[in-house]
Amino acid sequence: MSEYIKVAVDAMGGDNAPQEIVKGAVEAVNEGSKVKVYLVGMKEAVERELSGHTYPKEQIEVVPASEIIETAEPPVMAIRKKKDSSLVKALNLVKDGTCDAYVSAGSTGATLVGGQVIVGRIKGVERPPLAPLIPTATGCSLLIDCGANVDARPSHLVQFAKMGSVYMEHVMGIKNPKVGIVNIGAEEEKGNALVKETFPLLKNCPDINFIGSVEARDIPAGAADVVVCEAFTGNVILKTYEGVGSTLISKVKEGMMTSLRSKIGALLVKPALKQTLKAFDLEQYGGAPMLGLKGLVVKTHGSSKSIEIKNSILQCITFTEQQISEKIKQMLQADGIVSGEK
Amino acid sequence: MSEYIKVAVDAMGGDNAPQEIVKGAVEAVNEGSKVKVYLVGMKEAVERELSGHTYPKEQIEVVPASEIIETAEPPVMAIRKKKDSSLVKALNLVKDGTCDAYVSAGSTGATLVGGQVIVGRIKGVERPPLAPLIPTATGCSLLIDCGANVDARPSHLVQFAKMGSVYMEHVMGIKNPKVGIVNIGAEEEKGNALVKETFPLLKNCPDINFIGSVEARDIPAGAADVVVCEAFTGNVILKTYEGVGSTLISKVKEGMMTSLRSKIGALLVKPALKQTLKAFDLEQYGGAPMLGLKGLVVKTHGSSKSIEIKNSILQCITFTEQQISEKIKQMLQADGIVSGEK
Repeated sequence: MSEYIKVAVDAMGGDNAPQEIVKGAVEAVNEGSKVKVYLVGMKEAVERELSGHTYPKEQIEVVPASEIIETAEPPVMAIRKKKDSSLVKALNLVKDGTCDAYVSAGSTGATLVGGQVIVGRIKGVERPPLAPLIPTATGCSLLIDCGANVDARPSHLVQFAKMGSVYMEHVMGIKNPKVGIVNIGAEEEKGNALVKETFPLLKNCPDINFIGSVEARDIPAGAADVVVCEAFTGNVILKTYEGVGSTLISKVKEGMMTSLRSKIGALLVKPALKQTLKAFDLEQYGGAPMLGLKGLVVKTHGSSKSIEIKNSILQCITFTEQQISEKIKQMLQADGIVSGEK
Repeated sequence: MSEYIKVAVDAMGGDNAPQEIVKGAVEAVNEGSKVKVYLVGMKEAVERELSGHTYPKEQIEVVPASEIIETAEPPVMAIRKKKDSSLVKALNLVKDGTCDAYVSAGSTGATLVGGQVIVGRIKGVERPPLAPLIPTATGCSLLIDCGANVDARPSHLVQFAKMGSVYMEHVMGIKNPKVGIVNIGAEEEKGNALVKETFPLLKNCPDINFIGSVEARDIPAGAADVVVCEAFTGNVILKTYEGVGSTLISKVKEGMMTSLRSKIGALLVKPALKQTLKAFDLEQYGGAPMLGLKGLVVKTHGSSKSIEIKNSILQCITFTEQQISEKIKQMLQADGIVSGEK
């Protein structure tokens, strides 16, 4: 049994829980022979969903939890009070070593707080960032940080750059990934106080491939593999991506429906278009890993369907096999970082 | 003669100067009977371009300038040294009252610095923002600030909200425009230090229609008419808009070219699609006004073609007729703002 990568899944988190979560877990074990899923949630509800599926029984285990943390709840309070929630119990499975990784479509705030408080930071990591993959014209880039670390300091951004490089190299297989810092111009002297202070630190970092400033305009073109910024900026980029993408795609659809001629054309282009646009869909990349923790914590969209849950679970295999947390630890130790954990 | 709105145009600014600038000026006077354009630049070059066009002679005047400020030049130094540059001479026409407004596709930095140093701020305005109109699903919104004012203070953002409201109401004709502050969540307690400090100030502003936080995801849908943020965030939003838009549109085109079937479809949808996508083109809205100055300063894209120059010139008519600078002044006086100019 010990050859399995073990993933704790919050079966009650997200808009489509538990149906799509359970379905995604089943799809993951049916596809990945190396993974075992611990479905944490209301026993009856989870087992009822499971009963409709076929899968290798030894690869899914139900762990009962009687409470649910809602998206709107204040995260710190929720984590502290709801000890028997699916989120807290699933994170505890990672903490106590039963599982290697955790996947949830539930509250982002509670996941970020729980990741730090329950799973815990790797010694030396100042702030664990949330780092989604975003689609680009040439593949995808890691946008780091999109978490809750607003008002970050330069030293945080330097760690983001390093952790992001480890992730892109060893999980995504990009050799010597290009690291850029989000800025409002290409020149070194441009930017706000944070960027100006961080720039020379990144420039002097021997273990990353720093290419300088990246303007937001060039991110979708794939200018950098690791796009470093503080969380407020990261959230703004991620959400502008989503917003412009969906508005533009509905404009395209609307445009195609304006005349009989264009409607016929639409029928003809639809299959090809669907294929291309899929490559630019933010949701295809599964969840965003929270880096710098003792175990892997993956947050997927609240609206996740089974496919994203499946992808998020399968993504834990590479992460665990590649020992990303171990590599991050080694990198920080090589830097001589000695600041302890709080 | 005095019934004309007078616009000083930097004939040498931008990638397509002077050809497209001169062409845009000609198109503007041929379309707008109320406007007179002062084309500032190399006399010979400008007159050579003009000689190929037909237009009412009394509506275009050439003002000679022997120097050009390049985009890459450090703005403050350039403004100080190149007294006979088209940019400085054109701004001086606004300063001395010869012109009501200024339009340039040249250096953004030099335009922002020149606007403040030469044209000057309205008494009480702390920082004049650059505020482009961005397309949304329902029309357009004013993104304020996208200028060079990084590391802004809460009081600056409050003024942006007020000036933006005046602009959207009186230039764009939107009654009681909705004002939102860019944030990473809808709740009042979310955000970075700047947003948290600014939020209650905007909430207590009697003269604007503050609707609270706006997530970047909702901006393209048209959630707010006036989108308030500091310039770093504004630049990131504007450029992510541009980048995602152009990458997505090339993906759509690429998708349509993948098979014979889709190529035929593409021919049929093309005219309708072009029409719809035009409504989502950042460049159709002409230039971005710099608000809070004693005269109007408009910055258009460096890559502007004649149509954008024309639109930017014509936009000066409404701005001047509606006495926006006067209205901003009155609003600040009503607030009892007494901080003098530097």
